[in-house]
Amino acid sequence: MYIVCSDLEGVYVPEIWINVAKQTGIDELKLTTRDINDYDVLMKRRLGILKQHGLTLQDIQKVIASIKPLSGAPEFIDWLRSQSQLIIVSDTFIEFAEPLLKQIGQPTLLCHHLTTDTKGNIVDYNLRQKDSKRMVTEALQSLNFKVIAIGDSYNDISMLRKAELGILFNPPQNVIDEHKDLKVVKSYDELKEIISQTISNE
Amino acid sequence: MYIVCSDLEGVYVPEIWINVAKQTGIDELKLTTRDINDYDVLMKRRLGILKQHGLTLQDIQKVIASIKPLSGAPEFIDWLRSQSQLIIVSDTFIEFAEPLLKQIGQPTLLCHHLTTDTKGNIVDYNLRQKDSKRMVTEALQSLNFKVIAIGDSYNDISMLRKAELGILFNPPQNVIDEHKDLKVVKSYDELKEIISQTISNE
Repeated sequence: MYIVCSDLEGVYVPEIWINVAKQTGIDELKLTTRDINDYDVLMKRRLGILKQHGLTLQDIQKVIASIKPLSGAPEFIDWLRSQSQLIIVSDTFIEFAEPLLKQIGQPTLLCHHLTTDTKGNIVDYNLRQKDSKRMVTEALQSLNFKVIAIGDSYNDISMLRKAELGILFNPPQNVIDEHKDLKVVKSYDELKEIISQTISNE
Repeated sequence: MYIVCSDLEGVYVPEIWINVAKQTGIDELKLTTRDINDYDVLMKRRLGILKQHGLTLQDIQKVIASIKPLSGAPEFIDWLRSQSQLIIVSDTFIEFAEPLLKQIGQPTLLCHHLTTDTKGNIVDYNLRQKDSKRMVTEALQSLNFKVIAIGDSYNDISMLRKAELGILFNPPQNVIDEHKDLKVVKSYDELKEIISQTISNE
C-alpha cells in the first residue's frame, strides 16, 4: 500500500520567506541556507530582523495569507488524495503554513513550530527533530507503507533516497546535477502519470 | 507538539458494516467481533455473504456514500484541524472509507485495503499490520509528537494506553466498565474542552 510523502514549498506553494521578503519590502529576509550555511544562525538572524521591524507573528501570517498556492496545486492535491493518502512534510513552522494549508484543502502537515510571547512576538523556533523528512518516511515504512516521496531541494534528498520512489519536482539545476540518478518531473501532469503507474503496478 | 490520532467509526461516522446491513437488508452483515471472535473468520464470512448476494465493491460503495457522518462531526473536524494536525486510524478498508472521508473534509486516514477482481468483486482483504492503531501512535511518538488518541472500542484501547492522552469517546458501557481509568467524554464539546486544555498546557 503506497502513501505519498511530499514537501510543501516549491511543490504546492511558493517559498514562504522569499515571499515575505518581497511583500514586506525587507530584502534581508531573502537570505537562505545558500547565503548562511548554518540554519540556526540563519533563523536567529531572521527572527532578529522581524524584531527590528516590529513584526509580530500575526503580521507575518497576514502577509502569508496573501500568498497564493502554485497554479494547479489545489486541483493536483484533490486528485492525489483520490489515489493515495498524503502526508506533507516541511521544514517550515506550522504557524506560517496554516494560512496556506487552508488554500490547498487542509492536508496533514508534519513540520516545526514557533514560540511567541504574549504580545505575539516570535521569540524562538523549535525543530521537531533533525532530518525530519527522512524520519517521517521511515516511520511510514515501519507501518508497512511504501512511500512515494516528492521534493525539490537539498533538504528533501534523504527522504527521496529513503522512499520506495523518490521524485524531484521542478528542482533547481544544481540539485539535478548533483543527484543525476533521481527521477525529475516538471509538471503536475507528469507527476500524475508516474504516481498512477506506480500505484497500479503494485 | 501534540498531534491527534483518532478512530473513525463511532467517533465521526456510524459503524459501516451495521449500516451496510441495514441498507441492503442483509441482516447477517450485522455480525461483529462480538458474535464471531476471530476477525479473519468474520471477514471471510462477510465477503462470502457479499459474493452470495452478487454485491460488488461498487455496490457497497454506493450504499456507504449514502451514510451520513455523525451530527456535528464535520464541524468538529474543522475545529480540530485548526488546533492540531489530525491522523485518522481505523481497522476499516480504504475502499469503504473513501465515500465517508469526502464528507468530513478528506482527513488523512491510515487503514487497511481490499483486493478486487476485474469485475469489482471483493476477493480478499489485506490488513496493513497487526495492532495498527498502537503502531501509528508509536510511529508518531518516534517523530517527537505527543499523541492525543481518541477511540470508542476494544480495538482502540492499546492506542489510548500508548498515547500521552487517551480519550474514550461515547464508548459502550462494557468498554467503560473494563477500562475505568481511561477518560470518557460524551460530546464534541467536551472533546474540544479537553483537547484545548491539553494543548494550551504544553
